Amino acid sequence: MSRLVMIALGGNALLRSGQKGTYAEQFANVVETCGQLYPLIERGDSLVIAHGNGPQVGQVMLQQEAGLRLYGLEAMPMDFCGAETQGAIAYLIESGLDRVLHRHGVQRRTISLLTRVEVRAEDPMFACPTKPVGPYYTREEAERLQALTGAVYREDSKGNGWRKVVASPEPLRIQHVDIVREHALSGDIVITAGGGGIPVVRTDEGFQGVEAVVDKDLAAALCAVGIGADAFYILTDVPKVYLDFRKPGERPLDTMTVAEARAYLAQGQFAEGSMAPKVQAGLFFVEKGGGECIITEARGLDDPSCGTRIIR
Amino acid sequence: MSRLVMIALGGNALLRSGQKGTYAEQFANVVETCGQLYPLIERGDSLVIAHGNGPQVGQVMLQQEAGLRLYGLEAMPMDFCGAETQGAIAYLIESGLDRVLHRHGVQRRTISLLTRVEVRAEDPMFACPTKPVGPYYTREEAERLQALTGAVYREDSKGNGWRKVVASPEPLRIQHVDIVREHALSGDIVITAGGGGIPVVRTDEGFQGVEAVVDKDLAAALCAVGIGADAFYILTDVPKVYLDFRKPGERPLDTMTVAEARAYLAQGQFAEGSMAPKVQAGLFFVEKGGGECIITEARGLDDPSCGTRIIR
Repeated sequence: MSRLVMIALGGNALLRSGQKGTYAEQFANVVETCGQLYPLIERGDSLVIAHGNGPQVGQVMLQQEAGLRLYGLEAMPMDFCGAETQGAIAYLIESGLDRVLHRHGVQRRTISLLTRVEVRAEDPMFACPTKPVGPYYTREEAERLQALTGAVYREDSKGNGWRKVVASPEPLRIQHVDIVREHALSGDIVITAGGGGIPVVRTDEGFQGVEAVVDKDLAAALCAVGIGADAFYILTDVPKVYLDFRKPGERPLDTMTVAEARAYLAQGQFAEGSMAPKVQAGLFFVEKGGGECIITEARGLDDPSCGTRIIR
Repeated sequence: MSRLVMIALGGNALLRSGQKGTYAEQFANVVETCGQLYPLIERGDSLVIAHGNGPQVGQVMLQQEAGLRLYGLEAMPMDFCGAETQGAIAYLIESGLDRVLHRHGVQRRTISLLTRVEVRAEDPMFACPTKPVGPYYTREEAERLQALTGAVYREDSKGNGWRKVVASPEPLRIQHVDIVREHALSGDIVITAGGGGIPVVRTDEGFQGVEAVVDKDLAAALCAVGIGADAFYILTDVPKVYLDFRKPGERPLDTMTVAEARAYLAQGQFAEGSMAPKVQAGLFFVEKGGGECIITEARGLDDPSCGTRIIR
C-alpha cells in the first residue's frame, strides 16, 4: 500500500564532514542521497522532501561578509539568505532526483515551492537567541560585529570560536501545505520548507520576514502533520537512535513510544542541537496524530525495518 | 471578462537606477511595483509573474568573488547562482504581493515555483557568448580571471569596464508550465521562470545545469505561450515603445503589427540588450498564437489602453 511520506533530509545529504562545500561535492552527495531514496519511489510512496540549509547559509553569510569588507555591499538579513538557499538547495535536490528518476525510467515530476513559515512575534525565543548561524569569529571580531550590527554573538560550546546566534521560534503554520499534499498525492515529488522555511510574522500590513531560523526538523514535522503524512522520515548520519550514545553500554533503539521518548529526553539521553531536536520533531508528529516517525540514515531505506520508530 | 495574463517584470521592479541594492530598497520597490499590478488583480485576471535577476545575480557573483579572495570559498556556477536568486527574488515578490492583497482585503494565494529551462547543448550561442553577467573589472583583472577560469570577458560597450560574458541560448521548454497554468486559472498568483529560468541541457544521465543565461523576456514569452496566456505584459521603465527613441522626431507607438515590428527591428529602431529583446519576445508570443503583447511601465496599468501593443 502506498503511503504519503514526509522526508527531512539532514545536512549530510548535501555536505559530508570535512568537505568544503563546492558545487561538485554537493552535487555528488545529493545524487547519492536521492539514489538512496529510490526504495520509497519504487514502492510508489507519495513523497514530500524538506531539507536543512546550515552549511549553505553559512557560506552565503561568509561571502556576504567578504562582499561587505571588500566592496561595501550590504549583507542581507536571514530571511533573504534563507530564500536564496531554498532556491539553490531545491535546485540541487531536483537535479539529484532527476538523475535517479531518469536512471530508473520513472516518470514523476519534481516541484519545488518557496515556503514561508509563520512564527509568533511574541515567541519567547526572540528574547533569547540560541541558534548559531554563519561563520566563526574570534572574540574580538564578534565583539566588533555585535557593537556594529546589534546582532548577538556567542562562543561555540566546542571552542571553535564565536558565532552569530538568532532566535529559533516555534513554527505556527507552514505556507501551502494544502498545495503540497495535493501535488504529492497526484504523484509529484514535492520539495518544501527548506531550511525550516523563511520565517515571517504577521503584522498590520501583512507578513514580515524576521531574523530567525526555525528548526528544520520541527518545520518538517509541522508540514508532515499538515499534509496528513502516514510516515515521517528524519534522515541523519546514524542508522538508529541510541541510548548512552558513544558511551559504554551504548544501545540502539528499534522503537520508542511517546512516553519513552519523553522520558529519555528528560534524562538528557539525546544531544542538544543534534539528536534531541529530531526526537522532539518525531514526538510532535506522532502526538499530533501522524503515523510513525522513523529516524535513520538514507542508506538504510532499502530495509523497510530500518531505523528507530517513534510510535504512539 | 477575466484573462490569463503573463507578466514579465523588468529590472526596475526591484532596483532603481542609482540604488545600491540594499534589502530596504528592493523591498520598497517591490511593494510599489506589486501595488501597480493591482488593477489587474482588481479586474480578476489570472496572473503569472516572471522576473529578471541581473542586478541580484551580479551582487551574488561579486560577493562570491570576495569570498574567494578573502576566504578561498569556491564561487558557484551560473545555474546555482540563478537558483539562489530565483529563491530570493520570488520571496521579495511574494512579500510585495502579500502587502497589496492584504491592503485590499483580497484572498488569493501566491505560489513561487523553482523553474528550470531546457536549452539545446548544440545551441550555436554556446560558441559565441554575448550576455554580460556579474561585476565590472579592469582589463588587467579580466585577463587574469579569463586565464584562471577559462570564462570569457568582454569590454562593455559603454566603457564601464570588462565583464564576464556567457551564452544566451534559446529556451526550448520551460519546466512546469502545466502546473503554472492550472494554479493560475484556479486563482493563485504564480511566480515562475525567474531570471529566464535555470538553464539545463538534456544528457544521457538527465538534465545538467549549464553556464548560460536565457533572456528573461524570451523565457517569459515561451511560458506565456505554454500556459496559453490571453495577454503578455512586458513591464519596463518607459510607458511605450518609441521610434527614433531619444532622437529628434521620437514618436511613441500605440500598436505594432508583427510585420511592422519585424521591419522596425530590421531597421535597428530598438536598442540591443534593451528594447530589441522585448519586442522580439512580444513577437514570439504573438506569432506562436498568443493574444496580445503589451510593452509598458507598471505605473500605467490602471489605464487599460496603456503601452504599445503588438498584434497579429
